[in-house]
Amino acid sequence: MDFIFILDLLGTISFAISGVLTATKKRLDIFGILIIATVTAVGGGTVRDVLIGKTPVTWMMDVRFLYIIAGSTFFAMIFSKALRYMRTSLFLFDTIGIGLYTVAGVKIGLAAQLHPVTCVILGTLSACFGGVIRDILCNEIPVIFRKEVYATACIVGAVIYILLHKANVSSELASILAASAVITIRLLAVRFNLQLPSPYRYSALGQGGNTP
Amino acid sequence: MDFIFILDLLGTISFAISGVLTATKKRLDIFGILIIATVTAVGGGTVRDVLIGKTPVTWMMDVRFLYIIAGSTFFAMIFSKALRYMRTSLFLFDTIGIGLYTVAGVKIGLAAQLHPVTCVILGTLSACFGGVIRDILCNEIPVIFRKEVYATACIVGAVIYILLHKANVSSELASILAASAVITIRLLAVRFNLQLPSPYRYSALGQGGNTP
Amino acid sequence: MDFIFILDLLGTISFAISGVLTATKKRLDIFGILIIATVTAVGGGTVRDVLIGKTPVTWMMDVRFLYIIAGSTFFAMIFSKALRYMRTSLFLFDTIGIGLYTVAGVKIGLAAQLHPVTCVILGTLSACFGGVIRDILCNEIPVIFRKEVYATACIVGAVIYILLHKANVSSELASILAASAVITIRLLAVRFNLQLPSPYRYSALGQGGNTP
Repeated sequence: MDFIFILDLLGTISFAISGVLTATKKRLDIFGILIIATVTAVGGGTVRDVLIGKTPVTWMMDVRFLYIIAGSTFFAMIFSKALRYMRTSLFLFDTIGIGLYTVAGVKIGLAAQLHPVTCVILGTLSACFGGVIRDILCNEIPVIFRKEVYATACIVGAVIYILLHKANVSSELASILAASAVITIRLLAVRFNLQLPSPYRYSALGQGGNTP
Repeated sequence: MDFIFILDLLGTISFAISGVLTATKKRLDIFGILIIATVTAVGGGTVRDVLIGKTPVTWMMDVRFLYIIAGSTFFAMIFSKALRYMRTSLFLFDTIGIGLYTVAGVKIGLAAQLHPVTCVILGTLSACFGGVIRDILCNEIPVIFRKEVYATACIVGAVIYILLHKANVSSELASILAASAVITIRLLAVRFNLQLPSPYRYSALGQGGNTP
Repeated sequence: MDFIFILDLLGTISFAISGVLTATKKRLDIFGILIIATVTAVGGGTVRDVLIGKTPVTWMMDVRFLYIIAGSTFFAMIFSKALRYMRTSLFLFDTIGIGLYTVAGVKIGLAAQLHPVTCVILGTLSACFGGVIRDILCNEIPVIFRKEVYATACIVGAVIYILLHKANVSSELASILAASAVITIRLLAVRFNLQLPSPYRYSALGQGGNTP
């Protein structure tokens, strides 16, 4: 699984870097930045593991990812200027990361004999919840709840994986196709500025709220 | 347990709808609304299950509740105007929900042979923590910490259940009496605007804080 | 282990009191204050237990700590004025508490055969996460992420414990030395106003943020 490992590595690195970028905006100290980077990278998988009872959770059993996160964090703090010019590559890594994390979460759910709907949720959780915890710790409403097609891409990818799995497609091929679907949807959504249909336009919902 | 199932159903529906109402005030997108509705409905039970090690957590093993939550959420988004005129019935459902969730939490604690005090906490957690997570995700100080008799009603109901259980009253009768106590206390508290005694009036506590 | 029990007791009391002080600043009601005090005192250990799968979590199996927390909370609410003059002793108790909680977390990790790096994280989590949850519930960016040497002291203490453990020093002596290291570092850091080096001074990091 060398190919998978490299993608997993890239996903972890880019999630960690996205954590650093959020934490420095809030002017946290070095320790706070490190924590936020770690939580962003491992948070989704941790919540998934705790909910299905797979404890001690994954990162406790394989500390290599902690080293990678620490390395990425210090790299990001030192080369912060260069990172500004690398936004596109970061976004690509991040998108690859959510594609892979989605597939990993679905697989773990299927291995635990859980219902397909639960597996879709586990995949989406794995990919998205790190960012949710990051935003809660930084005292923000999670960005994913407001304007991202992020989670929708994960849900579609998870459904694709399960359909291919039911059709007896090999795990490797299903993984590649499902992760590619997540990545493609997210890239297209950002490229063409697609959003979920707003529930506020034609209804009386949330009239008391702020204008968007 | 048809009667219990119907109440449980009503509780889940009304918790989900209360989640939708909070999420739309914050102008979250459709996905965010769905997540907040789900978390409000299953959050308390999930925290309870994780703390006692009952994993995979309940909603992962019975996806019918996820369907009910999704249905309630879309219903609430479509009929948001009508819901404004149904505040009282919603409040009733919500109150029935906390009554039932409290009893369910206490029962699970007793079945796991935990100490009565722990069981009271589990019952209260089950009923209240969904709302706490909802408020945290929406970046609010949980409403329950500020002005609700909500939790106090749960604690009283949980204590009543345990006393009846110790007195060898049948589980069905104890459930009905304890849930009725939660519901009655909450209805009376809201009707007569009862609050916990303020710790701020006669003491120097929190002088540095904002006026209420 | 009478000596350990007394220290543990003092730690729990002072964490509970620090929760009360935070909660009253936010003008929460009595129930909210009690919850925040409890979460501050048991939150770190609860997260640790959940992550390693040690459920039901510790405080569910030994309710004496819940009584101690409830007692400390009411004491703190009643004698709030006197507490203002006791800041230094409170700070001392709190520091003793984090020293001891750090050692307890490391020990539990070692007993579960986890990697030393994971054990350091578990020790730090045990000591610090109660305060993190307290701040999240009160809608603040956790103070530990911004200006405390708190966590750094825990990390150093945890590393010392593990090194002594590897060198076959007795558990009692290693505990005392490691806890003393945590306490000494924290006291010196506060006395001489030491902080982690700022990542913002010489780099372009966070230029978009607010000035500190």
